[in-house]
Amino acid sequence: YNVAVLPGDGIGPDVVSAALRVLGAAGEAYGLRFAFSHLAFGGAAIDACGHPFPDEVRAAVAGADAVLLGAVGGPKWDALPRERRCETGLLNLRKHLGVYSNLRPVRVFEGLEGLSPLKSEVARGTDLLIVRELTGGIYFGKPSFNTPTEGVSTDRYTRGEVERIARVAFEAARTRSGRVTSVDKANVLDVSQFWRDVVVGVHESSYPDVTLDHLYVDNAAMQLVRDPRQFDVIVTANLFGDILSDLAAVIPGSLGLLPSASLGDGPGLFEPVHGSAPDLAGKGVANPVGTILSAAMMLRHSLDQGEAASAIEAAVQTALEEDPTTDLGGSRGTEAFTEAVLKALP
Amino acid sequence: YNVAVLPGDGIGPDVVSAALRVLGAAGEAYGLRFAFSHLAFGGAAIDACGHPFPDEVRAAVAGADAVLLGAVGGPKWDALPRERRCETGLLNLRKHLGVYSNLRPVRVFEGLEGLSPLKSEVARGTDLLIVRELTGGIYFGKPSFNTPTEGVSTDRYTRGEVERIARVAFEAARTRSGRVTSVDKANVLDVSQFWRDVVVGVHESSYPDVTLDHLYVDNAAMQLVRDPRQFDVIVTANLFGDILSDLAAVIPGSLGLLPSASLGDGPGLFEPVHGSAPDLAGKGVANPVGTILSAAMMLRHSLDQGEAASAIEAAVQTALEEDPTTDLGGSRGTEAFTEAVLKALP
Ligand SMILES: CC(C)[C@H](C(=O)O)[C@@H](O)C(=O)O
Ligand SMILES: CC(C)[C@H](C(=O)O)[C@@H](O)C(=O)O
Repeated sequence: YNVAVLPGDGIGPDVVSAALRVLGAAGEAYGLRFAFSHLAFGGAAIDACGHPFPDEVRAAVAGADAVLLGAVGGPKWDALPRERRCETGLLNLRKHLGVYSNLRPVRVFEGLEGLSPLKSEVARGTDLLIVRELTGGIYFGKPSFNTPTEGVSTDRYTRGEVERIARVAFEAARTRSGRVTSVDKANVLDVSQFWRDVVVGVHESSYPDVTLDHLYVDNAAMQLVRDPRQFDVIVTANLFGDILSDLAAVIPGSLGLLPSASLGDGPGLFEPVHGSAPDLAGKGVANPVGTILSAAMMLRHSLDQGEAASAIEAAVQTALEEDPTTDLGGSRGTEAFTEAVLKALP
Repeated sequence: YNVAVLPGDGIGPDVVSAALRVLGAAGEAYGLRFAFSHLAFGGAAIDACGHPFPDEVRAAVAGADAVLLGAVGGPKWDALPRERRCETGLLNLRKHLGVYSNLRPVRVFEGLEGLSPLKSEVARGTDLLIVRELTGGIYFGKPSFNTPTEGVSTDRYTRGEVERIARVAFEAARTRSGRVTSVDKANVLDVSQFWRDVVVGVHESSYPDVTLDHLYVDNAAMQLVRDPRQFDVIVTANLFGDILSDLAAVIPGSLGLLPSASLGDGPGLFEPVHGSAPDLAGKGVANPVGTILSAAMMLRHSLDQGEAASAIEAAVQTALEEDPTTDLGGSRGTEAFTEAVLKALP
């Protein structure tokens, strides 16, 4: 398998190298061969060639089977004009790969409920999946401009865009507990009323076996904190998904634990949820769990190696139970924790 | 003082009549005279005359010194077309009154931290104010439509709209701890970059004594749950404010405790944060605290009676400490709790 590896900035390289070791070991156990090509992306690419998403990377990722990304950005590049910022590079990478669905599973690991800012009895057992539309909506709608007198952004969805993300959510629900909650603001926004109508149409025509309900985004934000266990699959538009997936990411108590997958019709993009944390870079303390679990999602969703994926997930769980990473109150840094995962692999 | 009273639907009439008793008593203690005119609004108005916001109400609220609203809506009216729904009535009422700023204070009362879904040590001491822009942004921007092939909403802000809400936030910060956090998505949205530029301009030219920082909305949602005490005044656009103020409203553990004020250049609109809870209507169990505290905000912000407002707030605090309402685990319903507030007034 050809995997394009974009370590990125800050702790990105630390956590990516941990994940590559785990992928290598899982590959040996399950007879998989990987070719990893490392490429500069984000701030690292700006430093190297003035642009966060160089043409060379454009070509390489399109030809890969999957893309593994660390983290991008940092204060060093924050003052650049919008078109040369790391965030813009990331948005363009998503658009280029056509990864229209972002999957963000959020689980509270047994024994780690104490880390949550929520009361342990509220957090315990949380196991949900946010399906965020990733290449449409107000992130990309035109017109979009900013003059001295006004600012305008446009939130637009077409039928095809909503149908395909709805299908992703219903399919995911079939492999889980069979429930989808669609989140919108249909009581106020026309674009949300459209979203809701299309989701209902897909449900009725193709997924009557899945339970569908709808929540307004303000209420969804409340419910995620009041009682996250009520949710299984949540599907929502790009901006609402950005907010709700970060909100949900707080529940386990550490962003370092969380993986993500962004999927389309070509190569998928896999990255941890946390940021680049420049102050921790290279210190050997970054939590690699989110990236290792992202690599597992890559095996499952892009490379069709569900068994190897499950083995990695089980090994991470075992290693966390033995002794979590230092940021979670345990005693192991990046290296020692990664070794423990390797040891727990079959 | 002329106060237009819109009890609305569900528990609206229950909590409004409690607040009117408290207002009456505070009026006697402080020598204030009120004339209350009761008007049907929301579902009650749809039932009476087919429209959630009848012309008669339009005229009455414009001529009042302030408007006190209970709660509107319920499943009974949810299937109506958008232009006749209760939500639309509410949006039109806001627009009609020109109440461009929505103030939502969120406090965790001492001794009631246990109600919060957050760990008590995370929730304890929370005391923040969300200032939400209420008559602009994507709620009202044109074009806005929904056809069989696409849905479109437009998020637009003009300089004047952002300047005036920024001023409200900076002024509020001066009466509190002197810090404002402006929330946007300026790394992606042009309308947010515009928002940020204007807020920075108002800060530099008129409020250099206030501390200003900026957060992206996804991060703000996370931080509100991780550590709500880091915030004092949060200012944000209409849609982000809708989401963040409901999210913050979860922290005290009951929506029933929270008041709101919506202010413009004319009469202000005061209402509790909770909904109409049709199943609890008329049972004598609705928590009147949010509405009583909204009436206190009315005294302070629209009628310039800060002393009477503070007396009501202190009386509510005393009554809550003695024995909270049944929904908070106490033993008192609407009536008994209201009596306790009356007794605690000077
Ligand atoms: C960095 C930013 C452009 C990005 C987004 O808003 O999509 C980030 O918040 C995310 O969720 O991946
Ligand atoms: C009912 C709805 C239109 C309203 C809004 O979104 O503004 C409500 O959620 C609120 O926050 O007051």
